Amino acid sequence: MTAQSGRHFLQIPGPTNVPDRVLRAMAQPTIDHRGPDFAELALDLRQRVKPVFGTGGPVVIYPSSGTGAWEAALVNTLSPGDRVLAFETGHFASLWRDMAQRLGLTVDFVPGDWRRGVDPAAVAERLAADTAHGIAAVMVVHNETSTGVTSRIPEIRAAIDDAEHPALLLVDTISSLGSIDYRHDDWGVDVTVGCSQKGLMLPPGLGFNAISDKALAAAPQARLPKSYWDWAPILDANEHGFYPYTPATNLLYGLREALLMLEEEGLRNVFARHSRHAAATRAAVQGWGLEVLCVNEREYSGSLTAVLLGAEHDADKVRRIILDRFDMSLGTGLGKLAGRVFRIGHLGDLNDLTLAGTLTGVQMGLELAGVAVDPAGLQAALSVLKAE
Amino acid sequence: MTAQSGRHFLQIPGPTNVPDRVLRAMAQPTIDHRGPDFAELALDLRQRVKPVFGTGGPVVIYPSSGTGAWEAALVNTLSPGDRVLAFETGHFASLWRDMAQRLGLTVDFVPGDWRRGVDPAAVAERLAADTAHGIAAVMVVHNETSTGVTSRIPEIRAAIDDAEHPALLLVDTISSLGSIDYRHDDWGVDVTVGCSQKGLMLPPGLGFNAISDKALAAAPQARLPKSYWDWAPILDANEHGFYPYTPATNLLYGLREALLMLEEEGLRNVFARHSRHAAATRAAVQGWGLEVLCVNEREYSGSLTAVLLGAEHDADKVRRIILDRFDMSLGTGLGKLAGRVFRIGHLGDLNDLTLAGTLTGVQMGLELAGVAVDPAGLQAALSVLKAE
Amino acid sequence: MTAQSGRHFLQIPGPTNVPDRVLRAMAQPTIDHRGPDFAELALDLRQRVKPVFGTGGPVVIYPSSGTGAWEAALVNTLSPGDRVLAFETGHFASLWRDMAQRLGLTVDFVPGDWRRGVDPAAVAERLAADTAHGIAAVMVVHNETSTGVTSRIPEIRAAIDDAEHPALLLVDTISSLGSIDYRHDDWGVDVTVGCSQKGLMLPPGLGFNAISDKALAAAPQARLPKSYWDWAPILDANEHGFYPYTPATNLLYGLREALLMLEEEGLRNVFARHSRHAAATRAAVQGWGLEVLCVNEREYSGSLTAVLLGAEHDADKVRRIILDRFDMSLGTGLGKLAGRVFRIGHLGDLNDLTLAGTLTGVQMGLELAGVAVDPAGLQAALSVLKAE
Amino acid sequence: MTAQSGRHFLQIPGPTNVPDRVLRAMAQPTIDHRGPDFAELALDLRQRVKPVFGTGGPVVIYPSSGTGAWEAALVNTLSPGDRVLAFETGHFASLWRDMAQRLGLTVDFVPGDWRRGVDPAAVAERLAADTAHGIAAVMVVHNETSTGVTSRIPEIRAAIDDAEHPALLLVDTISSLGSIDYRHDDWGVDVTVGCSQKGLMLPPGLGFNAISDKALAAAPQARLPKSYWDWAPILDANEHGFYPYTPATNLLYGLREALLMLEEEGLRNVFARHSRHAAATRAAVQGWGLEVLCVNEREYSGSLTAVLLGAEHDADKVRRIILDRFDMSLGTGLGKLAGRVFRIGHLGDLNDLTLAGTLTGVQMGLELAGVAVDPAGLQAALSVLKAE
Repeated sequence: MTAQSGRHFLQIPGPTNVPDRVLRAMAQPTIDHRGPDFAELALDLRQRVKPVFGTGGPVVIYPSSGTGAWEAALVNTLSPGDRVLAFETGHFASLWRDMAQRLGLTVDFVPGDWRRGVDPAAVAERLAADTAHGIAAVMVVHNETSTGVTSRIPEIRAAIDDAEHPALLLVDTISSLGSIDYRHDDWGVDVTVGCSQKGLMLPPGLGFNAISDKALAAAPQARLPKSYWDWAPILDANEHGFYPYTPATNLLYGLREALLMLEEEGLRNVFARHSRHAAATRAAVQGWGLEVLCVNEREYSGSLTAVLLGAEHDADKVRRIILDRFDMSLGTGLGKLAGRVFRIGHLGDLNDLTLAGTLTGVQMGLELAGVAVDPAGLQAALSVLKAE
Repeated sequence: MTAQSGRHFLQIPGPTNVPDRVLRAMAQPTIDHRGPDFAELALDLRQRVKPVFGTGGPVVIYPSSGTGAWEAALVNTLSPGDRVLAFETGHFASLWRDMAQRLGLTVDFVPGDWRRGVDPAAVAERLAADTAHGIAAVMVVHNETSTGVTSRIPEIRAAIDDAEHPALLLVDTISSLGSIDYRHDDWGVDVTVGCSQKGLMLPPGLGFNAISDKALAAAPQARLPKSYWDWAPILDANEHGFYPYTPATNLLYGLREALLMLEEEGLRNVFARHSRHAAATRAAVQGWGLEVLCVNEREYSGSLTAVLLGAEHDADKVRRIILDRFDMSLGTGLGKLAGRVFRIGHLGDLNDLTLAGTLTGVQMGLELAGVAVDPAGLQAALSVLKAE
Repeated sequence: MTAQSGRHFLQIPGPTNVPDRVLRAMAQPTIDHRGPDFAELALDLRQRVKPVFGTGGPVVIYPSSGTGAWEAALVNTLSPGDRVLAFETGHFASLWRDMAQRLGLTVDFVPGDWRRGVDPAAVAERLAADTAHGIAAVMVVHNETSTGVTSRIPEIRAAIDDAEHPALLLVDTISSLGSIDYRHDDWGVDVTVGCSQKGLMLPPGLGFNAISDKALAAAPQARLPKSYWDWAPILDANEHGFYPYTPATNLLYGLREALLMLEEEGLRNVFARHSRHAAATRAAVQGWGLEVLCVNEREYSGSLTAVLLGAEHDADKVRRIILDRFDMSLGTGLGKLAGRVFRIGHLGDLNDLTLAGTLTGVQMGLELAGVAVDPAGLQAALSVLKAE
Repeated sequence: MTAQSGRHFLQIPGPTNVPDRVLRAMAQPTIDHRGPDFAELALDLRQRVKPVFGTGGPVVIYPSSGTGAWEAALVNTLSPGDRVLAFETGHFASLWRDMAQRLGLTVDFVPGDWRRGVDPAAVAERLAADTAHGIAAVMVVHNETSTGVTSRIPEIRAAIDDAEHPALLLVDTISSLGSIDYRHDDWGVDVTVGCSQKGLMLPPGLGFNAISDKALAAAPQARLPKSYWDWAPILDANEHGFYPYTPATNLLYGLREALLMLEEEGLRNVFARHSRHAAATRAAVQGWGLEVLCVNEREYSGSLTAVLLGAEHDADKVRRIILDRFDMSLGTGLGKLAGRVFRIGHLGDLNDLTLAGTLTGVQMGLELAGVAVDPAGLQAALSVLKAE
């Protein structure tokens, strides 16, 4: 195989394409993390990061992957043996459940078919049944990266409130943060879990916890052992622009640049763009005569689309052909969706023509793999993009 | 207008998209241009640059634009009042003619309609008529950047040889070098003029002259005044890895990286890729029901395609809509083609999906500008790309 | 204050100056962490990282700070209530002790005066007394970043062996890794804790655990709750070039480049260079008539030197003057050394003239702060640097 | 020899150390040089570059080396056979003379000993003798890069004015621009020649001509053949933010960043810094017991210092030792100074500690080369740096 020219199409649902502007920001020299220039950076970030989460409260930033931020959400709020309520919306919801169990929590796991989000009625029902208030927390993945289904947090919040249940609401926004409308404060979320490598347009390496007053108040009672993830010393040090450990300075440079970019475009515009790109992608998929995995149009994801192939096709073969022939990476089917779906990421730093190039690549790849597709799918997508 | 996300589509016929690998190479610290590390770089480049020109002879590298390399070709080989034969193949051929005149040369300028390359028969005729051998040089633009027409150098060479005429053959490869098959030695070219910002995938700032033995031998007799462009001191200094002036070190870093990339892909593969992308682009244009400016299919350009619109349309309006709505730059109509054509660059560091994205953007832009196009054009292009 | 020209002198004991070559490597586009290119990178790093630790065994790489790697060493090998033996060699040894306690371990903490390393005789004595083998692990900081004292791991190992005690040996090499001779396998260390931002010349953001067979065998019995830090799934996934979470791709790019640089210089040469720079620094300090904090010349640190001022001086005032006037960052006195010492980092990507510039800055800053110094100190340092 | 750690000390008198901030600016993607974003850049630069030259008039920017800007100054103002007055102040003044002769000008070359600047009395005398006003231009090198001698432009201007002579004043500021006080307008200079790679802190690749009204008025009468260097089409195109050729976009990105840095520091502060560093360097040289080549203290250069060794020493051997042992590049002796002097560049993006490191390297290198030096030289330099 010859060396490939041109820019790789990284259209997995994260890591996303890091803008060269962010890469250049990250290439600045590392500085003294105890000096005045660092403090200025950290104090600036402390405020600037809040709007992306839709919060006025504190956001803790970890040098970690997103799974680290999952762990932080649990160990800061819960104690060994605590019961938590979780929902099988897909692969990542299942992994978070596994983590909770490994950390010594008891998980009530509501089964699901991986094509729908969390059912607010199920939340209501479970909590209503929990009259003893034994459930300490509800764990929800906002946007399932393995399925392209977005759960409706406001309705889940309403279900909790209607049940007058005191459980904390912990929400994973790994693949929605900075891409899909999200409001930590307005929606009454207690801990929001995020990461750097998706809508925030950064390389992997930072994890986030946005924290409500209720979660902050609960933390001192949480008895899961913790040190690295402990919010308290971080929040204390952050007051003065520092960290109790050596922070990931260069990723923080990149974070500042990425947040500036989101501000410049405007978060509402960012969300609208993602929504438009998602609509164009679904128009293509449906126009091709294929099935979008997500079955509820109120739960369509703005950041990725999982495409379900018939049982006679191997989705990974399609992906392999597309990678070999067109130098594009798509997301694989995870867990029980392996071989059945491929996932198109349309989040982060993306524009219409790159999305159009992406969809042409998918169409050609499907054809080369022997999947019958109606080329009208592409035109349908272009119609969406062309509309004002 | 809101800030734009995603990567700008730079699809003018140069400057082309500089690979990030080349940008990083250029970001290396500048070094002492009289020290051993620089000499190693320069001696390496001296050899490594030859294959792109198809020559075993010397190639002079100037810190200059391509127009500087035009001037160098003239002042090193010609004397005040010398007659040269040139051909009106387009805007840049006309500009080169103007330069020759400003420098004090007499130009026999064969008129043309900007839709064809140099006619070898016209070369034969003119030279046959010049029995006194008053014509000192024949100036040809290999690939007219303003029209997307590629002149057939081997046939022109044959015409000169058949006429047994001693004129030097000077060829501009500004937008063909590194993109379209070119053979300085095999085709008996005396001076090949090139630049950095097209097929070589670099930013603008370097000009090139590849020089035949015959041109080298002619240079001492050339009496046009010169100092900066003088080959002699440069060739002398280059022997030892140095320059008689301070060279553009960081662009040379980039040049090394770009040449490595061309080697890795293989020049034959590079040319085949450009040819394939050109074919896909023409398939789209013709499929849309529009006209390719170049009228001779043996002269289709591998690096750019000029699209001719009907008189009722304004090509610059199409370009403006495409820039505003889809963040893509296309080439404008130059000189007498202003407003009538737009040009699609498909050269340099490009791949199938970026070209596909480009063509979708052109199609949508045409539609938005009210130019009737048949969407089958895009499918025709994809068929070319999809074929093995 | 006017903007400052020139390059900041970052002479804290880490983060160190990241070579521009590493910064450029980190600026490469992020790729699919489940694709073949990533697997190639990860499999290469898996082997290439071993020699820096002096091990043939596995090294786990975390997206984390060094404190994360501390936690990983503990939670993978120990169970709630386990006794560990630790030594008060300075600020970081004390922080590691605190972490162990927070995680639910019982720490036997041998007090110290922060001017000496771990006394092998004390190790021998404590272990000999522990006939019931209640001590599960010995925690040692190889090079105390707060004091510039290097503990003698081989002698500590010998003490454990002489006592025929089964305790695991856990060693923090945060500020020695890649700077001071270290041999995980030869010295019988069970878990070596490292990080990216010191001798490895990277920005902060990666933590490391090198793991002995004995530690690997102990891990399944360790009952401290863990998920993120759990070695097992990482080691499994690493076999195939992957990670059970999204790894910090761009820092891994930098890691490969940094490891290549260490290979090119040669680890023995790297250690010798650090040793020479440390000797030059001490020559300056002692020549100035000041005191090196470390009192045992067998424990002088190769990577940093803490300078002890008389009680009449404020070390932070000296640092502030040096930062304001000479744009150089030095390390502050930590914990009980606050105000009493400042620390000169001479590790990572450093050469003679940068060290010389550093020492001139320290000398001038001391003079400006009113600390009487003999300028012969600088000449003494230059004599060391000048010697073959 | 082993690979070297740390950052190379590039202390030649240009190219200078390019700030990483400028390198990052240059790494931005190349854009359409005919589009609105480029126009904005060009129009901004058009104004922003003026203060560095001390002019309110136009400044032409060429993709070229500084020698190109030399040629531009001549061909835009002079005609074949014109007489020009020039002065043998050093190697570069001699090269400019050679260029003028090659271009067909007649040069009155006033001999010199390479240790002094242009003598204003000699200017007065020559021009007074030229009652026929046959001298068309006076060519002066402001700061001779080969000798470290700065000619006094205001006194030369006064001499021309006193002689009531109409000759144009052409001044080379290659190694003074952005480093040493210079005032194109106030000093009545007609063409100022500059380049990118010295005080402007850029890589090589840009040449500059600042142009007085008188020079602009003279240009149409100048009959030296020209095309590339012709001011007229460039000035026309610049009005709208464009160039008549493809400009060196990425170097222009760097230029903007460098100009911002000079603005942030303030030009007066920049000049004062260079002056202080020059004083410190001379203090070292004289303290070592060596001779500064420049014999007139009113002509000491603020940007470089040439050190004259006794005939028994080989300056290039000293340089070689310093390069091999301390990874520092110094300037060689050029032309008739070969082997007799080495040159220390202290211009561009430099701070006190890098200069101090430089001087320690020179001192150690001299000692290793067997040149007797008094180490008090270094302390003398530090006294200058330490003083407020």
